[in-house]
This record gives sequence, C-alpha cells and structure tokens, in this order.
Amino acid sequence: VKLLSLARDLKRRKARDRQGLFVAEGVRTVEALLDSPLRVRGVLCTAALDDRARHLRARASARNIDIHEVSEAEFASAADTEAPQGILAVATIPRRNTGDLPDRGDLLVLDAVQDPGNVGTIIRSAAALGASATIALPGTVDLWNAKVVRSAMGALFTHPVAALDWEQAHEWLQAQGLQLWVAAADGELVGRAMASRTGRVAVVVANEGAGVSAHVARAAHRRVAIAMEPPADSLNVAVAAGILLHELRHQPL
Amino acid sequence: VKLLSLARDLKRRKARDRQGLFVAEGVRTVEALLDSPLRVRGVLCTAALDDRARHLRARASARNIDIHEVSEAEFASAADTEAPQGILAVATIPRRNTGDLPDRGDLLVLDAVQDPGNVGTIIRSAAALGASATIALPGTVDLWNAKVVRSAMGALFTHPVAALDWEQAHEWLQAQGLQLWVAAADGELVGRAMASRTGRVAVVVANEGAGVSAHVARAAHRRVAIAMEPPADSLNVAVAAGILLHELRHQPL
Repeated sequence: VKLLSLARDLKRRKARDRQGLFVAEGVRTVEALLDSPLRVRGVLCTAALDDRARHLRARASARNIDIHEVSEAEFASAADTEAPQGILAVATIPRRNTGDLPDRGDLLVLDAVQDPGNVGTIIRSAAALGASATIALPGTVDLWNAKVVRSAMGALFTHPVAALDWEQAHEWLQAQGLQLWVAAADGELVGRAMASRTGRVAVVVANEGAGVSAHVARAAHRRVAIAMEPPADSLNVAVAAGILLHELRHQPL
Repeated sequence: VKLLSLARDLKRRKARDRQGLFVAEGVRTVEALLDSPLRVRGVLCTAALDDRARHLRARASARNIDIHEVSEAEFASAADTEAPQGILAVATIPRRNTGDLPDRGDLLVLDAVQDPGNVGTIIRSAAALGASATIALPGTVDLWNAKVVRSAMGALFTHPVAALDWEQAHEWLQAQGLQLWVAAADGELVGRAMASRTGRVAVVVANEGAGVSAHVARAAHRRVAIAMEPPADSLNVAVAAGILLHELRHQPL
C-alpha cells in the first residue's frame, strides 16, 4: 500500500523531483526497464495479468524486487493510461549532468518542446538513430512524465538524457567543440549542410509554435531547413527531429 | 441548435459516414478549412472569442456561412478537445476514389495505421514532403476522426487522401506503374534503395505492432529499412514515414 500511494504521488512533477523516482507503465515499458541498468524500487500489479505480464512479474520477483498486488480500482488510481495492462514499476530517475554525457557523436537538443508524446517519440528516435545523448533545455516537459516515458518506449532507460539550463549546456557544447545547428524554415537545405559538415553536431529542435529561443538562436552556428511543398510550412517536431537525425547518420564524420 | 446536435452527432464515425460531414476544431484548423476548397456547412462558436477567432468568425460570416453562437457548455459537448478555443466548423468530407488521385509523383500508403494522432501527423508530412496523394487501407483509423483532422493541421483539406480497399488500391497502383515499397526492419537500406529507383514509388507504412498485412507484403516490389542503433529496433510510425518521404524527395525522378 505504501508503493501504491508512492506511485499515485509520482504523477506530480514535484513529487518526482523530490523523490528522484518515476513510474513506468505497461508490459513493454516495464520489460525495457528490467532490461536496463536502472534501479527498480517496486512493482505494482493487479491479479488479472495476461501471460506476458505474469512472466514479467516473475522476472521482477526473481530479482527480489518488491511486488504489491492491488485491486483494479487501486491500480487505476495510480496509472496514467486508461488501459494500463495491470502492471507498473517505480524506479530511480538517472540524474545526468554534463559530466555524464559522452564526448563523442552527434547530439540532440530540445529547446522548450512541451508536448510529452512528441518528446518521448523524439527520445526514442534519438536512441534509434544514433545520437549519443539528448539535452533538454528549460521549457521542455519533464522527461519523467508518464506520457514521455511511455512514448519513449524504453529509450529513456538507456539513452543518456540531461535536463540542463542554457548556460550549463552552452558551456559544455563549446568545450566539446560541438557545432550548434538549429532547425529553421529559412535555413540552408539540410542535405547540403550535412554534406559539408566538419565536426560533431548538436541539432536543436524547438517548440512548434514559438521556434528556437533567442539565446539559442544567437549561439547557433548554422540554420538548417527541410524542404517543404507549399502551402505546408511546418512539420510535426518529432518528424522534423527524425529527419534531421537520419540525415546526420548519413553523413558520419 | 440544429448545427450543435449535428456537430455532436459527428463525433461518431457512423454519423460522419452517413452524413458525409466532419468537424474541424480550433482556430488554426478552421482557418485552414476556410482557405481550402472544401464546402463549409456551418460554424459553431461561443461568445468569448479571442481576436483571431473573432476575425475568423467575421470571415465565415462574409462568405454567408451559417454561424451559431452557443453557450460554453453546449460548445464543450460538441468539441473533442479540452480547450477547443470556442470555434469549430462542420464541412463536407471530400470523398476521393482512384479516379480523383493524381497520375504523377510518389505516394504514401497507410496499412492499418490505427493511432489517430500518428495518422494526422503522417498526412501533414505527406503534404509537406511532396507526396502527391495518400491511400488509407482498411484497418486505418477513419481519416475524418476529430483527432486525425487536428493532427493533420489543415493538410487533409488540400492533400488528396483516399480510403480504398486493397483490391482497388492494388489495381490502381499497378495501372499507374507505381512500385510498392514497404518499410521493413530487415529490408535494404533506404538511401541505397532510393538511389537506384527507376520510377514512381508508393511507400507503405504499417501498424507498429503488427507490421504490413500479408497481401500487401506479397505485392511489394522492395523492402526498405531505416538503419537503427541497437537495442532500438523500431521508430514511431510517423517518424518512419517522415524519413522515407524525405528520402524520396531527395531522389526525384
């Protein structure tokens, strides 16, 4: 019952920040969590589990993870989704700072991207398309929000992600010699820019409505655009991030 | 009040199919609708509109479109979103068959893609990245579902989209000489495939869990993959569609 009230509490960002814990929900996400190095505090489940969830419960049990069986109604009160498959886990948030980021590869930077589904999808893409890390700048939704965790499909558990303020991020990017490229509709075409790149790149994607922050725009080395067919003048931010990351992969150093 | 009950009714697919009408919600979407050739049946709004919505109301009024002002509660009963900006429009669904599809350019095919947000995002990408049309095969969510319309950000009003059964679609694709390429993790790398293409291409993206349908897989000319970094083995379907469409645009005929 203590785990139940903890899981309920962790729906609020303040509680996640204070406790350093988050909730992973659903069979696929809990599986990815158990496959990852993250520390799992406990598993909450209902009695009515399907085979895959039951197997997962047994796996957690074999690792001496606390398992609490609760009623459907209690479970629903802690779950974020409507059909949560009867299993969730509480685990430790891996707090990463600049010192924990790899000093190789290209990076992705999220500048005030607010939609949790988009942010999770982008982190899933960053991991799949070979970015070495992702930096989340202020204004970006909390990375450990249940919907971000779910949309990331496990990528948050292995791909290094750091929430940094701009000064920290900028200093580190400069020290690493990373070129800062911002996505901008009036920039040079991405294919051409990629072909002429001379070093590691940090690609910035921003809030769809507001665009990149003024201080990020000032620090940018290049502005890159994805060619579009009028009257269209924008793409979903997760689609744009995917295209830019895929292009970067095509033009490795 | 007739328009109010009509808008409420159109939340159900059956009602949309029977009436041939759909609902477009929010300032940006209604703006795009008024910019499009689609026939608008009426506008429903509340009294408390911001400047942009008020301007939009005036635009509709100047075109002799029926405008009904309703209470906040009545409006909320017809709206799909939680913060619907107080304006929605009812418009005619442009029913398209194979005869309405252009006989030029590359195409996108949706094979049982169920998530409405993904489908709307994909149609937005298809329009922006220059696909000449999109075909939705059975199992794909209704294209005129409120969430699809919202996520498409107006693209549904101008980009030609046809919901076809497989036999119709296949016959038309063959008659057009379109090569059918399916996204598949174990296919040839997309960049290589694109560089060697010899004609118009119809790219198929499928349900993330189930993959392409057996009959579509049998008809495929090529299987193309996006290179991924283990342990990742998949991308969000809208991200994958965006990358494939962007690659097609890089290798025009």
